[in-house]
Amino acid sequence: MINNNIQLDEQGRLKHFLSIEGLKRQQLVSILDAAETFANVQEQAVKKVPLLRGKTIVNLFFEASTRTRTTFELAAKRLSADVLNININTSATSKGESLLDMLHNLESMHCDMFIVRHNQSGAAHFIARHVSPHISVINAGDGCHSHPSQAMLDMFTIRRHKKEFANLKVVIVGDILHSRVARSQMHALTTLGVSEIRVVGPKTLIPAGINTFGVHVYHNMQEAIIDADVIIMLRLQKERMQGALLPSEDEYYHNYGLTEKKLSYARPDAIVMHPGPINRGVEIASSIADGPQSVILEQVTNGIAIRMAVMSQTLSPRTETTKTGSTV
Amino acid sequence: MINNNIQLDEQGRLKHFLSIEGLKRQQLVSILDAAETFANVQEQAVKKVPLLRGKTIVNLFFEASTRTRTTFELAAKRLSADVLNININTSATSKGESLLDMLHNLESMHCDMFIVRHNQSGAAHFIARHVSPHISVINAGDGCHSHPSQAMLDMFTIRRHKKEFANLKVVIVGDILHSRVARSQMHALTTLGVSEIRVVGPKTLIPAGINTFGVHVYHNMQEAIIDADVIIMLRLQKERMQGALLPSEDEYYHNYGLTEKKLSYARPDAIVMHPGPINRGVEIASSIADGPQSVILEQVTNGIAIRMAVMSQTLSPRTETTKTGSTV
Amino acid sequence: MINNNIQLDEQGRLKHFLSIEGLKRQQLVSILDAAETFANVQEQAVKKVPLLRGKTIVNLFFEASTRTRTTFELAAKRLSADVLNININTSATSKGESLLDMLHNLESMHCDMFIVRHNQSGAAHFIARHVSPHISVINAGDGCHSHPSQAMLDMFTIRRHKKEFANLKVVIVGDILHSRVARSQMHALTTLGVSEIRVVGPKTLIPAGINTFGVHVYHNMQEAIIDADVIIMLRLQKERMQGALLPSEDEYYHNYGLTEKKLSYARPDAIVMHPGPINRGVEIASSIADGPQSVILEQVTNGIAIRMAVMSQTLSPRTETTKTGSTV
Repeated sequence: MINNNIQLDEQGRLKHFLSIEGLKRQQLVSILDAAETFANVQEQAVKKVPLLRGKTIVNLFFEASTRTRTTFELAAKRLSADVLNININTSATSKGESLLDMLHNLESMHCDMFIVRHNQSGAAHFIARHVSPHISVINAGDGCHSHPSQAMLDMFTIRRHKKEFANLKVVIVGDILHSRVARSQMHALTTLGVSEIRVVGPKTLIPAGINTFGVHVYHNMQEAIIDADVIIMLRLQKERMQGALLPSEDEYYHNYGLTEKKLSYARPDAIVMHPGPINRGVEIASSIADGPQSVILEQVTNGIAIRMAVMSQTLSPRTETTKTGSTV
Repeated sequence: MINNNIQLDEQGRLKHFLSIEGLKRQQLVSILDAAETFANVQEQAVKKVPLLRGKTIVNLFFEASTRTRTTFELAAKRLSADVLNININTSATSKGESLLDMLHNLESMHCDMFIVRHNQSGAAHFIARHVSPHISVINAGDGCHSHPSQAMLDMFTIRRHKKEFANLKVVIVGDILHSRVARSQMHALTTLGVSEIRVVGPKTLIPAGINTFGVHVYHNMQEAIIDADVIIMLRLQKERMQGALLPSEDEYYHNYGLTEKKLSYARPDAIVMHPGPINRGVEIASSIADGPQSVILEQVTNGIAIRMAVMSQTLSPRTETTKTGSTV
Repeated sequence: MINNNIQLDEQGRLKHFLSIEGLKRQQLVSILDAAETFANVQEQAVKKVPLLRGKTIVNLFFEASTRTRTTFELAAKRLSADVLNININTSATSKGESLLDMLHNLESMHCDMFIVRHNQSGAAHFIARHVSPHISVINAGDGCHSHPSQAMLDMFTIRRHKKEFANLKVVIVGDILHSRVARSQMHALTTLGVSEIRVVGPKTLIPAGINTFGVHVYHNMQEAIIDADVIIMLRLQKERMQGALLPSEDEYYHNYGLTEKKLSYARPDAIVMHPGPINRGVEIASSIADGPQSVILEQVTNGIAIRMAVMSQTLSPRTETTKTGSTV
């Protein structure tokens, strides 16, 4: 059982950002509001603010992901922080050093934040439990568990298009079982008060305990998509599949790929989302991915703003404390 | 057929820098003049100007080249830009993402410039044709086609030593066939009005259509070198050779290596150039590479200044536009 | 025979930092004093000073070491320098370029400092002898020879705890034979006037000429540790061992691992040091590594301050010269 209270400090402010679970609606809204500011920063000629100048942010990637690493690196640099990229496969762990010893070493170098990507669920929580009080930990994806910054950039994208969450019908399509993104999205949508969340996918890719999320489960995509305001396609995590849970790509596309025909069942102003990278012709038709209802590239843009918001919110409280003279 | 007009915006200003072909004399001179300024910046104690502060420049290297990547990275940092290094072999393309999807993702992250290195001719042009209007693309070498920043740093080095291009005799020696550097140099020398360009190398390494460049072809090096003002040695691109076009290294050195004896046929104030890295005793005698007529290390220094010039010229117009309020 | 005078310029100021050998007591003290200032910088909310703004510092690592590279990178960034990381295995040397040609290229790009890590003794000295006058070289570990910044951070840690060096009894434990750290420590301790230096380890791991250092050699650890003020544990450099000089890890731990029992022979206020990464249960008991007498993580923190001190001291003199107008 993963404890999520660890995310908040004693005043209830965000200290780590590990999962959507355990955060209140007002905290999610506060992140979304901050991201609006940073979205504007990115539109300026000088896309930089000095908020985290002198801070050291470490990309601690135990699982390679150029794409996610890049968004965090850009977000950090646009906040004027210094960034260290550490790929654990090539690091001192090859000398037999334990993970905790490595973390304590980085802490001792006065690093301020660890962005953690790991293929095991709970890794970021584990690290957050063991770091010094002056460090913030951001979960950049842990196993099948959580990918909270992805979920928040999705929420940000939905809010920009739909204004209010209350009356939305949101459909999540695909491999719910292995998707840390889906898990985080369901928590975020619920917390933000979405009235109806539907998930749809083959039986083998819907987790057993899904009902506890209060979502509606479908196996027929057309039915699931009727009157939807938001359609969230998931990536087929081929590299994460264990065993033959999946039909052929053709069969998958036929049943669960988003085609023009299936999309026609949604509301005419429905938006189509995907966390990327896209498998064209497997999860989604190219005409839709590149079409007017797609907000897939906006999601990427919003991802930088959300990460700037999360970084500045988790580091700011202690920045202020430090300014008034306490030793960090 | 590669279209080079794509390099200019509607006002005829440099937007991408893909090849020397298609650029007018005045445009080349303008780059050389800008580089003079940046050459001075590098002589200062603080080798940095804030011209591109807040810009994000991506080194998009599909072919490893520490040396070229380093010069672009330094140039970008000395213009105060943020730099992302992306090595494509280890990136998201391994997840099956298409090149264009990857580019559009980077664009959506508000990156401003792609420095592209690729082993296929035309790759940078292809990318320039498909990026959003706010992006500039710089060709850092594409297959056997073009390496325009290398050619411009060579022109800069020649101008610093010879002042005028008009009456120069310039010899290019070696593997013309595989050399993107030679191709770009011939275009640049012609555009800048050099009166006599000679190329010399074994028959197997001179391309068939060379005459269209208006150059004089030699196979005997001593003849080619008589009265030369500038001698440009090419690197033996062993890693690019396909098939056995080449004699032994010893035989090559005997015929086309630059020795003291062969150099004596040139003008006494001739300068000797090489794009590096040097194969000592294959293309050039060590005594010449390290001797008084060699400007090989000056070329390296000038390479930073030229890259600063190209980066600032391609990004500046839109910087100004942005300042006056249009959304980018 | 390695010449160490090369470290000083004509005015006797530190120009390179290659080994403790050849430096006078006052020079070591000056580095320690400067590091005190930088230790304070790291305690501030903005851990950055503009001392080396516009300077380019190159991490030239011929031997992988994420940990050491990271400390130098952080130190450079906190001095506001630009940092280039060059891993030599993947660089132009694969194109057959000689080491010196590569160095001269980097010099020509107006780089200011090379941080050199190499598995051959004397590599940093070799490079320092061949670089241009405007370049500083820092030895970040060369073979079994020297690791002077590690030794200085150890001295800094000792001084912070013990104030004076004169009356200390310092024990160095373990593989003296292969340890560049031990060699540098012995020079530093001697130069700073430590009254008694003891080394202890199995006969196979104590170098033959050790007596020239003026140290006391022990093979029994309890005897060596009696009344010690400072206990410096060395890392078992398994990856550096050639041949079977070593008993099993269990036997090593039994004889030379630092246990509570053995530690009890030292002075009650003795401090325990280790350069990291730690092999728990081989060189040191976990309870001691994490216990009240351990200063192992302070050493890491102090490592940044020492590296900032060394970087700023070696680069500063020429910075001043440049400011007054001479061309660099």
